[in-house]
Amino acid sequence: MATLTMLRLSEEEQALLLDVMLQQRYASELVSSEITDIETGQKKCEETRIKQLNNLLVRLHKAGV
Amino acid sequence: MATLTMLRLSEEEQALLLDVMLQQRYASELVSSEITDIETGQKKCEETRIKQLNNLLVRLHKAGV
Repeated sequence: MATLTMLRLSEEEQALLLDVMLQQRYASELVSSEITDIETGQKKCEETRIKQLNNLLVRLHKAGV
Repeated sequence: MATLTMLRLSEEEQALLLDVMLQQRYASELVSSEITDIETGQKKCEETRIKQLNNLLVRLHKAGV
């Protein structure tokens, strides 16, 4: 997760970003899009990450966000 | 930040979501859109939050994400 590390957001800033994303209902869309990019071979990632993304998407869907 | 608290994402899940958002370059767009909603009166928030959002947007722009 190079991007996040490089940006060095404080915990408060990270929480604010997540909150805005969830409030605007973009979270599922972003994760779905990321999974599609991986599955279609446009992005490469480790198997652990794709599993984590899938689990996260299920949780977001269940929560309705 | 009720939404984030309600969802109870683990730290790992939060980091994953933030990473996807930053990789897809949506972070600035989301924060800009939130600020516009507040400034046009479509959303209400505390003054602290609007200041935090503005600071965050400046940081994201500087980092180019």
